[in-house]
Amino acid sequence: MLLFHHPISAPSRFVRLLLDEYGETPELQEEHPWARRPEFMQLNPAGTLPVLIGDAGVAIVGAFAISEYLDETRGPMMRDRRLMPGSSLERAEVRRLIDWFLAKTEADVTRALARERVFKLQMSPAEGGGAPDSAVLRAARSNIRQHMRYLGWLAQSRNWLAGDAFTCADLAAGAAVSVLDYLGEIDWASEPAAREWYSRVKSRPSFRGLLTDRVRRLPPASHYADLDF
Amino acid sequence: MLLFHHPISAPSRFVRLLLDEYGETPELQEEHPWARRPEFMQLNPAGTLPVLIGDAGVAIVGAFAISEYLDETRGPMMRDRRLMPGSSLERAEVRRLIDWFLAKTEADVTRALARERVFKLQMSPAEGGGAPDSAVLRAARSNIRQHMRYLGWLAQSRNWLAGDAFTCADLAAGAAVSVLDYLGEIDWASEPAAREWYSRVKSRPSFRGLLTDRVRRLPPASHYADLDF
Repeated sequence: MLLFHHPISAPSRFVRLLLDEYGETPELQEEHPWARRPEFMQLNPAGTLPVLIGDAGVAIVGAFAISEYLDETRGPMMRDRRLMPGSSLERAEVRRLIDWFLAKTEADVTRALARERVFKLQMSPAEGGGAPDSAVLRAARSNIRQHMRYLGWLAQSRNWLAGDAFTCADLAAGAAVSVLDYLGEIDWASEPAAREWYSRVKSRPSFRGLLTDRVRRLPPASHYADLDF
Repeated sequence: MLLFHHPISAPSRFVRLLLDEYGETPELQEEHPWARRPEFMQLNPAGTLPVLIGDAGVAIVGAFAISEYLDETRGPMMRDRRLMPGSSLERAEVRRLIDWFLAKTEADVTRALARERVFKLQMSPAEGGGAPDSAVLRAARSNIRQHMRYLGWLAQSRNWLAGDAFTCADLAAGAAVSVLDYLGEIDWASEPAAREWYSRVKSRPSFRGLLTDRVRRLPPASHYADLDF
């Protein structure tokens, strides 16, 4: 399998985590979606990440489609380590949380911070590169608190985010949080339950690859790869 | 079942179409998400539509979670009229298109036009009501052409949008297009294949409810409910 991804893209990280949990070791190809490379746009006209070239050489586009595809094709072999619960209502809750962390948190917070602080370092001036826009940073940062509070509430009320068992929802949240944590944007002291949950998530073997990611000219926050903070 | 929806919300319309195709007649409750009604925010902290109160009285949140839930619980009884294909790769393509029409088209076009032209009529001044912002309208309208061109390309290349069979992807696209068509925002003359596809989609019995929707002070485009345009 071949995964088109970017190291500072939460939906890409979610799929890398999923693949590792399912025991798959895809080839990783870093893609700069802002460059709108013609071969990539043919695979995904939306020009978004991630895109997985799966078993049959066919492109599977987007975190939602990929996670359902992997659950359908690999889930049953996982038995009690399956990342989607057995009942339809519990599955609906997992999907709600994937949508929360990879669509809502992404739109309110993660996408803007990744673009302003990372992508703009990698873009040419013609592509929109340059200094971060401080108004955009301010707006995104003012949204982080609400998202961290909700994460804290979930972590406090449940064993894992969607209930008793570890699921895809924990990976989706972990992917988003890991991007923000790389950038040093999270005030962990104010959300101890979220901190304890994240410490458990990032200790999973599937997280190892993410914790060694490095962006040129932008080292991670000092505690980023520290499993006990 | 009880569906919290808004008549000019594409994801809400998608779920109304799905429920009708599955033979379900839910009670409909119009919700104004901008009002952030406390009881509604408790059902869905994201404050977004649609939310379905399903079989067990439990809230199922968001178009993605609801469509998978309905396929899991009702799909098998639909036999060859099932709205999701049988193979995992074909299902991935349906999910890519749902994401295109209900996330990308929504973010690029539909959400802004619905907000500026409809929601602002229903909002109080304190909620942000008032005249549409012409810069926002202009940006959304300049994106429509690309989205209609892609729809036209799909309609020309395939029998239905995801392939040979009618699927959820046609309902997702139909929901988005029907909102834009209500508002008279679509230049049908320039996309004949999309027009022919939409004429087939809106002739389905499940579309009847949508075609009789009316927003106070904003009648639909004259051809809106005309099955042959």
